[in-house]
Amino acid sequence: MSQYTAQQVHLKSRPAGLPTHDNFALVTVELPQPAAGEVLVKNLYMSVDPYMRGRMREDAVYAQAYALNEVMYGGAIGEVVESNDPSLSQGDIVLNQKAWQDRFVAPANTLVKLEPFDRAQLSLYLGTLGMPGLTAYVGLFKFGEPKPGETIFVSAASGAVGANVCQIAKQMGCRVIGSCGSDEKAQWLKNHCGVDEVINYKTCSDLNTALVAAAPEGIDVYFENVGGEHLQAAINSMNPFGRIAACGMISGYNAATPEPGPNNLMLIVGKKIRITGFIVSDHVDMREAFLSEMIPWIQTGKITSHETVVEGIDHAVDAFLGLFSGNNFGKMVVKL
Amino acid sequence: MSQYTAQQVHLKSRPAGLPTHDNFALVTVELPQPAAGEVLVKNLYMSVDPYMRGRMREDAVYAQAYALNEVMYGGAIGEVVESNDPSLSQGDIVLNQKAWQDRFVAPANTLVKLEPFDRAQLSLYLGTLGMPGLTAYVGLFKFGEPKPGETIFVSAASGAVGANVCQIAKQMGCRVIGSCGSDEKAQWLKNHCGVDEVINYKTCSDLNTALVAAAPEGIDVYFENVGGEHLQAAINSMNPFGRIAACGMISGYNAATPEPGPNNLMLIVGKKIRITGFIVSDHVDMREAFLSEMIPWIQTGKITSHETVVEGIDHAVDAFLGLFSGNNFGKMVVKL
Repeated sequence: MSQYTAQQVHLKSRPAGLPTHDNFALVTVELPQPAAGEVLVKNLYMSVDPYMRGRMREDAVYAQAYALNEVMYGGAIGEVVESNDPSLSQGDIVLNQKAWQDRFVAPANTLVKLEPFDRAQLSLYLGTLGMPGLTAYVGLFKFGEPKPGETIFVSAASGAVGANVCQIAKQMGCRVIGSCGSDEKAQWLKNHCGVDEVINYKTCSDLNTALVAAAPEGIDVYFENVGGEHLQAAINSMNPFGRIAACGMISGYNAATPEPGPNNLMLIVGKKIRITGFIVSDHVDMREAFLSEMIPWIQTGKITSHETVVEGIDHAVDAFLGLFSGNNFGKMVVKL
Repeated sequence: MSQYTAQQVHLKSRPAGLPTHDNFALVTVELPQPAAGEVLVKNLYMSVDPYMRGRMREDAVYAQAYALNEVMYGGAIGEVVESNDPSLSQGDIVLNQKAWQDRFVAPANTLVKLEPFDRAQLSLYLGTLGMPGLTAYVGLFKFGEPKPGETIFVSAASGAVGANVCQIAKQMGCRVIGSCGSDEKAQWLKNHCGVDEVINYKTCSDLNTALVAAAPEGIDVYFENVGGEHLQAAINSMNPFGRIAACGMISGYNAATPEPGPNNLMLIVGKKIRITGFIVSDHVDMREAFLSEMIPWIQTGKITSHETVVEGIDHAVDAFLGLFSGNNFGKMVVKL
């Protein structure tokens, strides 16, 4: 054993509906010394993301389900504390899939060494420069395929993925309509992300009517993060040959009984709509291209980020649960 | 005026829900002499197709809505009776969009002269060699993209489009599962079309369970003609990266109040499913390739056709209404 312990969040039971604190346990474990080829890492930031809800299901379709009474996993940024491998040195910053714990020992070759463009903004590698940013980039370019001048509708527009979609689409010369759940988020989207029209879906009387008003000439692309009513409104406003990049449908993630879908799917045929579901992990080959465009956009201020930072692994579950009540504004990260 | 009259079926009122005879009127009109460039045609067969229901809506999305108190249109095969244009002669067979009438006068350049491979099988040009056959071909190759050895599920499998999809997919070396609404159709699909498994959706206790049993290893392609429960079952059984070619959703065409959609659309993301709606008229560039493959398939008996023939323009509305109660077995045509 090393002199180190780690705090880990374990999945104690599978949530039925909205997860609660009772589904999780904070557990302290002792860590071994790093063996040859291994390193000991202290995580600085961990990510909480909506997709994690899917992995809490026994029948998870995205990836392997989280095991019960074991530490969960996910993206994190850590600093090497001790290295027993020549490829990594103390102080190196590594991207890892060992979230939900503050320290861990792992083979060096399972970690990605980062050369951060700014060490004061490490958490960006969990957001705009990380999985959510790449998700936005892949979904938009590969499946949304917007052309300059087209109109795109983005749901959960102030979320970690949505905010990047909005801003990349603006870089491309699209008209962007976003939906979000608070006036504060709406202001940020308009004033800092350049979004043309914002719909507060919680206060508008009818989402469908609001979208028709925001896009009187229809939408060409819908970046789907929400599902349900949002999808129905998007299909209703879709122009012929419109594309839907289906990244997530958070409105259904916690439904104990699945809710019926939109009542206008028939329009998919008449409007010749294409809907494509995707998972970012199938498209990591686009990461180089993504970073080479995104880092300059950030450095020149063309793309801005907003983060909600929760402190301490003992609040990681709070941070995760907050995703489903819209508490996050931009990327939700936990500072460890 | 010529010495000819025509009988035409007019749309008298827009149906709310399932159309009835009251929505239509049989009208006799006098025909003018064909002017220069025009021909007088006697229609031999006319087509009735599910898509026509969409054109009876005021807000038709496929194409222009049928006007009230005017003759409707659609595919028909006719014989030139009098020609006032050098490109067509008496006795020529022409494909036209002048269905719902037994005779008409039209510019020669709006008609397609056919060189039928068999004059005894002219009605094939409204079915297997016509729009429904081309629809099957385009939907399958362009949007379903099945690979040999993959499993495809076809709804309304004994219909004009579905039966061609099943048989083309068998030619490609796919495993084919079809759904239909009678045991007679099921037998025909198995014995004459080579379909591997058939589900009678009216008598199976649960469509979803039946599809899981018929495709224990899942489906890779779904050719969508029906919507609703069929779509839900297909998504449930879909393998990762599955494709849905959305050709029609007949279960919803007559709903006065739109019905909710499948409750499992969230799986589109996790399974990375692609759904593409299409309309055959956008893909007429594939007609040459289609005919060059389909005619030999028919001539060598590799693809078979079944038709339901209704006689007389006074029964055309019956034929059309029969589409929605599953009265047709294969392509429904009206012999004039």
